[in-house]
Amino acid sequence: MVELRAITEDNFIDAFNLRLAPGQEDYVSHPVRSLAQAYVYRDQCQPFGIYAAGKMVGYVMVIYDHDVPEYDIWHMMVDESMQGRGYGGEALDRVIEYIRSKPLGDSGRVALTCNKRNPAARKLYESRGFSATGNEDEDEMELVMTVG
Amino acid sequence: MVELRAITEDNFIDAFNLRLAPGQEDYVSHPVRSLAQAYVYRDQCQPFGIYAAGKMVGYVMVIYDHDVPEYDIWHMMVDESMQGRGYGGEALDRVIEYIRSKPLGDSGRVALTCNKRNPAARKLYESRGFSATGNEDEDEMELVMTVG
Repeated sequence: MVELRAITEDNFIDAFNLRLAPGQEDYVSHPVRSLAQAYVYRDQCQPFGIYAAGKMVGYVMVIYDHDVPEYDIWHMMVDESMQGRGYGGEALDRVIEYIRSKPLGDSGRVALTCNKRNPAARKLYESRGFSATGNEDEDEMELVMTVG
Repeated sequence: MVELRAITEDNFIDAFNLRLAPGQEDYVSHPVRSLAQAYVYRDQCQPFGIYAAGKMVGYVMVIYDHDVPEYDIWHMMVDESMQGRGYGGEALDRVIEYIRSKPLGDSGRVALTCNKRNPAARKLYESRGFSATGNEDEDEMELVMTVG
């Protein structure tokens, strides 16, 4: 059972200590860098620890883009020692449930980007209803879905 | 003329790109890590870029500790390419002026820590009126001053 818990002063050190798998540094920002961005976007985002059995196993940030408008899912990662257990998919389900409650703004559009050389991530996103928009930026492709 | 400007979405990338001098990684957190902490302490802290001639040359965070209470100066650094020009001392003067306005709480106590193997930093702090409290934590010593 995977759950999301907001990053606070009580658990941020656990997020600092999460490790990207070798090679994933090319695809995903580390939670430390993501939380630094959360500072400047603090009025429109919510960073979470991903928890399994009460232990932080990963990280994800949800940010509301008022310009589009849309929800963006940023920097989702699972610690290298905790991968291959389905936590990413369960965390994505929790994130979509969270966005469905429209906590930061009214849009039902949900977007994320995926590195083109990361087919496993793309497959995961497509399994949850995301599809490619055709928009690309260097090595990243955009995928979107709509929540009710 | 050195000035402080709040870190916002307009300048945080400049803070991300500041470089600690070789060896200083042992003494000082990088601004990215500091801003990640700023996220969780966002209601009691203010991170700044240190500017000279309109360019960000360094970084410093002021945080109010409600428990002591006191102002703490965290993570002050000047980019490795901009050191030796007196920017650290001028920035410290601006920080003390900022704290003197009591922006985050009523205390006039100002504290910081300095690595024991960093006598240049200690000398700078003492030149501005800080003195050692005798409190030490591993390699760090605490210095304090009082503003009116």
